[in-house]
Amino acid sequence: MLVKNREQVVMKAVEMDDTQDVQMAVLIGDDEGAPNFIMRRFEVQSGGHTPYHTHDWEHVVYILEGSGKLVGKGVERTLKAGSSLLVSPNEEHQFRADKDSGLTFLCSIPKR
Amino acid sequence: MLVKNREQVVMKAVEMDDTQDVQMAVLIGDDEGAPNFIMRRFEVQSGGHTPYHTHDWEHVVYILEGSGKLVGKGVERTLKAGSSLLVSPNEEHQFRADKDSGLTFLCSIPKR
Repeated sequence: MLVKNREQVVMKAVEMDDTQDVQMAVLIGDDEGAPNFIMRRFEVQSGGHTPYHTHDWEHVVYILEGSGKLVGKGVERTLKAGSSLLVSPNEEHQFRADKDSGLTFLCSIPKR
Repeated sequence: MLVKNREQVVMKAVEMDDTQDVQMAVLIGDDEGAPNFIMRRFEVQSGGHTPYHTHDWEHVVYILEGSGKLVGKGVERTLKAGSSLLVSPNEEHQFRADKDSGLTFLCSIPKR
């Protein structure tokens, strides 16, 4: 068993096209011996966003702090602390932090 | 994409041997179309605990609120809000809430 406290987690800027003010850290992944899926922590600063994109794996997400929007093809859903969500494989999606609030969430993905 | 807010989540008592004051809800699972792994929310009341047991799948966990202990074979680790952890397949484990605090966490498992 492996326990990682908050103080041990180092957030790093996400360098991708169409990305603004997003930091990420892998919490439980390959380095920790995750067998099947990986849990990451994301922090989006107020007004920031992840890329609007799609891929063939899912996201299983839990909102820890802040508020924002999950944007998809013709759809926009409100996110707040305590929301959980599924983005299915091949669904277009983007996470946006509200202008007056950051958005911090866990996002798990299958190992590939 | 599917978003579930905190108010939609109904916690239910976990009825297992060697379990005290534990409630659980599936956040993203079969009913929500989870392809590969399932995210559940657990609430352990102060002084309560999950069973001390083992199984051949892993737990990927994030502590949301409260404090407690992760107990294993000859090992005890402190848990607090913001801790993340991995229990590997076939590791003996138990989650215990501290006597003066509940323990609320997310626990994800692979689909079987």
